[in-house]
Amino acid sequence: MLEELKQEVLEANQGLETYDLVTFTWGNVSGFDPESENLVIKPSGVPYKQLQPDDMVVVSLDGQVVEGTLKPSSDTPTHIELYKAFPGVKGIVHTHSDWGTAWAQAGKGIPCAGTTQADYFNGEIPCTRRLSKEEVEQNYEKYTGTVIIEAFEHIEPLEVPGVVVYGHAPFAWGTSPENALHNAVVLEKTSKMTFLSRQLSENGKPELLDDYVLNKHYERKHGKNAYYGQ
Amino acid sequence: MLEELKQEVLEANQGLETYDLVTFTWGNVSGFDPESENLVIKPSGVPYKQLQPDDMVVVSLDGQVVEGTLKPSSDTPTHIELYKAFPGVKGIVHTHSDWGTAWAQAGKGIPCAGTTQADYFNGEIPCTRRLSKEEVEQNYEKYTGTVIIEAFEHIEPLEVPGVVVYGHAPFAWGTSPENALHNAVVLEKTSKMTFLSRQLSENGKPELLDDYVLNKHYERKHGKNAYYGQ
Amino acid sequence: MLEELKQEVLEANQGLETYDLVTFTWGNVSGFDPESENLVIKPSGVPYKQLQPDDMVVVSLDGQVVEGTLKPSSDTPTHIELYKAFPGVKGIVHTHSDWGTAWAQAGKGIPCAGTTQADYFNGEIPCTRRLSKEEVEQNYEKYTGTVIIEAFEHIEPLEVPGVVVYGHAPFAWGTSPENALHNAVVLEKTSKMTFLSRQLSENGKPELLDDYVLNKHYERKHGKNAYYGQ
Amino acid sequence: MLEELKQEVLEANQGLETYDLVTFTWGNVSGFDPESENLVIKPSGVPYKQLQPDDMVVVSLDGQVVEGTLKPSSDTPTHIELYKAFPGVKGIVHTHSDWGTAWAQAGKGIPCAGTTQADYFNGEIPCTRRLSKEEVEQNYEKYTGTVIIEAFEHIEPLEVPGVVVYGHAPFAWGTSPENALHNAVVLEKTSKMTFLSRQLSENGKPELLDDYVLNKHYERKHGKNAYYGQ
Repeated sequence: MLEELKQEVLEANQGLETYDLVTFTWGNVSGFDPESENLVIKPSGVPYKQLQPDDMVVVSLDGQVVEGTLKPSSDTPTHIELYKAFPGVKGIVHTHSDWGTAWAQAGKGIPCAGTTQADYFNGEIPCTRRLSKEEVEQNYEKYTGTVIIEAFEHIEPLEVPGVVVYGHAPFAWGTSPENALHNAVVLEKTSKMTFLSRQLSENGKPELLDDYVLNKHYERKHGKNAYYGQ
Repeated sequence: MLEELKQEVLEANQGLETYDLVTFTWGNVSGFDPESENLVIKPSGVPYKQLQPDDMVVVSLDGQVVEGTLKPSSDTPTHIELYKAFPGVKGIVHTHSDWGTAWAQAGKGIPCAGTTQADYFNGEIPCTRRLSKEEVEQNYEKYTGTVIIEAFEHIEPLEVPGVVVYGHAPFAWGTSPENALHNAVVLEKTSKMTFLSRQLSENGKPELLDDYVLNKHYERKHGKNAYYGQ
Repeated sequence: MLEELKQEVLEANQGLETYDLVTFTWGNVSGFDPESENLVIKPSGVPYKQLQPDDMVVVSLDGQVVEGTLKPSSDTPTHIELYKAFPGVKGIVHTHSDWGTAWAQAGKGIPCAGTTQADYFNGEIPCTRRLSKEEVEQNYEKYTGTVIIEAFEHIEPLEVPGVVVYGHAPFAWGTSPENALHNAVVLEKTSKMTFLSRQLSENGKPELLDDYVLNKHYERKHGKNAYYGQ
Repeated sequence: MLEELKQEVLEANQGLETYDLVTFTWGNVSGFDPESENLVIKPSGVPYKQLQPDDMVVVSLDGQVVEGTLKPSSDTPTHIELYKAFPGVKGIVHTHSDWGTAWAQAGKGIPCAGTTQADYFNGEIPCTRRLSKEEVEQNYEKYTGTVIIEAFEHIEPLEVPGVVVYGHAPFAWGTSPENALHNAVVLEKTSKMTFLSRQLSENGKPELLDDYVLNKHYERKHGKNAYYGQ
């Protein structure tokens, strides 16, 4: 089942290495099939180079393995929460990429300091709140989804397709596994650029992009009158 | 038409990846033919590896597509403004390279802090002023050209063949597409080196190169008595 | 003798280059055979690419070469001290990897600032005390082992499988040469991430990971109810 | 003539790219033949990949081209000054490597903050004084040699085989072209490590290595009782 989606999820997982977003097996990509309401996700702890399409695990939104002989990623409950809460999202990426993780560890969102971010994210990439002790001990991966969803209470997830989880690392998403991977790459790039530009500021705060430039860049790629690309 | 220039523009665009100046399709190179007053530019949003010479788009200085079936880069109006204002410039490069973009995001020019920059840039690489809301909404890409030209009111463009646009990223240029690419590489290198040397200073300001060393280095490569190379 | 271990030690030494942990011959890996109480270690100063299994040197815990025609790594006495003091350790890695060495040079342990570290290290990666003049002059490499052991007086070595030696560089260890290499890679990654997140903090101190998240991450990979992987 | 030395100089020049020390043609290596008192040096501005042994230029200590059809590196007069002043030096490397150049631009020597530097440099890698306007205008490349020599008035050049020239970039040397290249790689590595460890210090000054550790490390590789390697 879902053979095409398995292939897409496989390729996006391998793309994590192509774009230098992971060390060892520290990242995973899933894809969502809205019709069957199942997700397809990387098996836990398996090196990307060894992955075959049939190693991908099909999981239902209530967390049951529907198909597959391997154990799904330990982060599966986080993916499930996000698919349930964010309509239209059909791909999710989790990485421990260097620069994004640095912002996560600092407990800070990545402010929109340049057009590189504005081309894909309509504003700051937020940082979640800390998880409480109870949340961590009771159902850590599920509540990781919860704090992400809370951070997007007033933000449209497909307009700001990524987040850094406090003390942890980035998640990114999109309209497909490939698009989610794309956004994860951008999140890492802009994490680096804005780290650097913040170091160049006199007061330790990065210069922010003017709102009207942010809007312009976001809209020329994503608005209804978008004119970037063919 | 302009087959040779198309080939040069193609190769310089592919050079953006060779020199690690771009992610995805975040950069473009154009070339200018002074005789016909046409420019040749990368099509918008097409991956570099897929590009063929005939994908290059020929555009006139009034912005009309003269030849080509693809849409030209969305930054074409910026290139046009620069070719109109900077005589002798026959190649322009735009990138979102990491370190140059950091300076752009900080709203700071790259001071001449060493001979590496002085070998190619006769002084500081300036940062443009911010664009106004009106400029952004009315004709963003054209006015991006305008603010670059303003920054060069008292600077000879071919002596300082690059700039960082406030909140955005670098542009570089030269006497050919290849030469413009070369200058974009130098801009990125010197952006990194001077970021680092600034961090080593006690007062947060980079040590500047003495004027007479700057002149010496620039002149030994570019002056009429230049003696570098064969 | 110990042919299998020699092969493992060889591969882990070559892994130092694969994971970009060394320049020239600035690193070495050993493996320990608890039955014979011998260790197998890289020969001193030989490039990784030239190494053959039979070049590995077998050394006893009293420092005698048991087998091999080449001189063992000059750091052998440090490895010996650690194998004698840390039961269960069967592989040790020494590198001068960039970011880990930076922390060593600063004389600072790497605080646990994120889940990346918590996945492998149950807390801060400590920095040893300085060696005294007498220790350095009398038996430098042996006392390098001594100061590492002192740093683990109240820490279980297999729960925090790495250290930075004051003014010097990292050591990491594990249950096999391959596992020790794995931990050396993590030490380098987390050294970079926490360097960066420390730069993002307002007061020059990195934000620390909450204890209950640290425990959760460490336990889900290493506790008796671990559920990461297949 | 000097066919063997030409080959060594060629390989060391190509090593500049292997070890990522140069961009374009921003670096050169020479070798010295004490018998004939000639040096062999890279031709100016020729890409490393195109170089053939016979492209190397033979130059006498008074600056005359003895053999070769190409123009020697524009930095030849600096190399000549160093060979004349530093007996035993038989290879010199000049690069604009990123981290070493950052220290040069900051006008600071690289303090010995760790054993990585101590393994090859018996103390701080000095920074020269600024050149005066007269020196730059009269004979820039020769006086670049002069300020290097001045910095070594109280230092044995083969014990500290490298320097950063104020506002410019590193030079390194050694007992052969290959050994000089080796030292240039170490200079770059330690420039990075000590930049990073300096950022980790509370007062903006890097922690220094204890003298007795510095001596120990230097002597175990270079002293008469050296015991590193085979």
